[in-house]
Amino acid sequence: MTEDLYELGSRVAESARVLSRASDAVRVAAVRAAASELRAGAPMILAANEKDLAHGRDAGLTQTALDRLRLDAARIEAMASGLETVAALSDPIGTVVSTDVRPNGLRVTRVRAPLGVVGVIYENRPNVTSDVAGLCVRSANAAFLRGSSSALASNQQIVAALQSGLAAVGLPREAIALVEDTSHETAIAFMRLHEVIDVLVPRGGPSLIASMREHATVPVILDGDGNCHVYIDKDADLDMAERIVVNAKTQRPGVCNAMESLVLHEEIAGPMLDRLGRAMPQVRLLGDQRAQALSSRVEPASDEDFAREFLDLISTVVVVPDLDAALAHIERFSSGHSEAIVTSNPDVAQRFLAEVDAAAVLHNASTRFVDGSELGLGAEVGISTQKLHARGPMGLEALTSIRWVIQGEGQIRS
Amino acid sequence: MTEDLYELGSRVAESARVLSRASDAVRVAAVRAAASELRAGAPMILAANEKDLAHGRDAGLTQTALDRLRLDAARIEAMASGLETVAALSDPIGTVVSTDVRPNGLRVTRVRAPLGVVGVIYENRPNVTSDVAGLCVRSANAAFLRGSSSALASNQQIVAALQSGLAAVGLPREAIALVEDTSHETAIAFMRLHEVIDVLVPRGGPSLIASMREHATVPVILDGDGNCHVYIDKDADLDMAERIVVNAKTQRPGVCNAMESLVLHEEIAGPMLDRLGRAMPQVRLLGDQRAQALSSRVEPASDEDFAREFLDLISTVVVVPDLDAALAHIERFSSGHSEAIVTSNPDVAQRFLAEVDAAAVLHNASTRFVDGSELGLGAEVGISTQKLHARGPMGLEALTSIRWVIQGEGQIRS
Repeated sequence: MTEDLYELGSRVAESARVLSRASDAVRVAAVRAAASELRAGAPMILAANEKDLAHGRDAGLTQTALDRLRLDAARIEAMASGLETVAALSDPIGTVVSTDVRPNGLRVTRVRAPLGVVGVIYENRPNVTSDVAGLCVRSANAAFLRGSSSALASNQQIVAALQSGLAAVGLPREAIALVEDTSHETAIAFMRLHEVIDVLVPRGGPSLIASMREHATVPVILDGDGNCHVYIDKDADLDMAERIVVNAKTQRPGVCNAMESLVLHEEIAGPMLDRLGRAMPQVRLLGDQRAQALSSRVEPASDEDFAREFLDLISTVVVVPDLDAALAHIERFSSGHSEAIVTSNPDVAQRFLAEVDAAAVLHNASTRFVDGSELGLGAEVGISTQKLHARGPMGLEALTSIRWVIQGEGQIRS
Repeated sequence: MTEDLYELGSRVAESARVLSRASDAVRVAAVRAAASELRAGAPMILAANEKDLAHGRDAGLTQTALDRLRLDAARIEAMASGLETVAALSDPIGTVVSTDVRPNGLRVTRVRAPLGVVGVIYENRPNVTSDVAGLCVRSANAAFLRGSSSALASNQQIVAALQSGLAAVGLPREAIALVEDTSHETAIAFMRLHEVIDVLVPRGGPSLIASMREHATVPVILDGDGNCHVYIDKDADLDMAERIVVNAKTQRPGVCNAMESLVLHEEIAGPMLDRLGRAMPQVRLLGDQRAQALSSRVEPASDEDFAREFLDLISTVVVVPDLDAALAHIERFSSGHSEAIVTSNPDVAQRFLAEVDAAAVLHNASTRFVDGSELGLGAEVGISTQKLHARGPMGLEALTSIRWVIQGEGQIRS
């Protein structure tokens, strides 16, 4: 199968070269056509999704996993309109990043260029297939996709629809390609295709990330865990704090930008725990001794708990004497995703925003906003928790590289 | 030794955190103080360099390698004044990359932040030690350096001087650190320190790059080979073409931005080969059959030759019927570093500049300009031949990441 993967990869790379020369108008038309084909293909996509769901039930997938896998007419419409949103974004390719004339007269310009082939390994949400493919084609990159086996039939139909969109405007179909062999062995081979793949975005849990660290030879952008903290300062508006904590923890607990850890200033810890007991009784709280002493609802937490991404209605809670202690706790346990403070004190907010080392830092806002659509990117390929190339939600710009264009009149170096 | 490396790494990471909070003024002062200490330490550095050179001669290093290793008063002064140039560059940290107010009132800003710990593996030029360390400290990053064994004594003295500069302004010495165990085993361990190193720049030959692909678990920016082409179009000014080719090939043949491959339009191939025979008789030419037919100086070339980075007074040469054939040859053999065209035809130039996929594309200028100093970066950490994060010469901006700063008034997600 590795042989087949390499051959498919070569065709994807060739398609990327064609795509890199396509005009903005053609790429916009391709993404729009893909949206139409997705709508037209909805019956086949839903039939394939039924098959995946049946296999999933037989294989004992959890209810949460089945929910993530499930498509319906509304979700397909959301995928199609998501593509139209991406089509309407302005072209990142050719954008001038900097321009300079050197003392010797050389004109030096840096312009945005496509990356080439973007590889993505992801789990069972089929909408990732169209989100990623749309962003890639819009930015003149080929999308080389390796979804999970549990969503294979759905992904095959979605990719077929998207490919029809490419074909409708005369672009090569394999600028969007799906790896249909979902074996672990092929995933490893995929991570090692550095002659084909210019960047790999692994969207998955710790075992995927460990495997990627061990085996990948292609450059990687890590879409890692979110152990997101919310720190409630002594000068917080407690109504606002309650609203933000409840939203960050319970609005969608299974996603990476949900709150997993609550840090309370000792002066407001008691009243906040009382409020949260009433406002989100369904959330289990695991805390340090001080939190346990303040509320009988708080069960003991271990260091492993403080480091965990629960993706569930569970949160850790610690009580701290001051901002320094809050910063130290966050520095120790942060996964570098999103960290928030609630305070009315601008100096305290400023220090928090300046000193916390994470992809996103928030003041008086829910961590749930750290998302490509919410932050104006239209959609996202993932949320980078590494510092290299892209950090936080990755939209079109994250799918570009730079070229130096140097124009002279015969200059030579002395 | 791996244990020691990990401990040293932890101290470097801790120093990076301190450095990330240092003001612009303190970082400027540190780099200036490092320049002074380098000048003051010149006698000790030169004595250490004598030792390295003696070992190198005993170990049978080539004359070229010894030249790269050798320091003298002028080279140390160049290192010190290089640091002063870097100190004078404007601070990249905190620069606002984009700013936006969302419909819900959230203020969203992206600001430049340090990467953290920058690891560099490099060969025997000791000036790399101060160039890299200066750029890192200027951009609030720690420099974790692993130079070659042949330059160990020189590097130890240089790093000691630079560390005195840090100490002089109250910054932790280990924001610049040298791995003194230069074994292969420790190099591998270094590539796997992903808990400490935020980005690794390997500056070296194919074996280092292969080893890095196999073993690295830290994110990498590849400083790869330069198989740089110069294409002489039929509409080129032949005087200019001759000047550029001679400069690109002979001004400093041992560096990555030297020309390695010449591509000649058939209409000017004969006269160009005659000119080059006179202008650079010392350069061996290996060519295709058409080039061989035009000049008795051209020896046969293999595909391996067309792909090779000679770093020597050797060049391949091919004769092509048109721009498409030139683009196809370059696409096949390019290492993605720097590719140049000489032509007076603006349409031909435009197509070349738009279609060639390399870090730098040049029109009517020598490939030798693809260099951090020449392009206005002050100095360079290396020249990236990958598309991720940074491409081409890497200066201060390449040593930064981004943070999203999101400010609200209690917004929650609905």
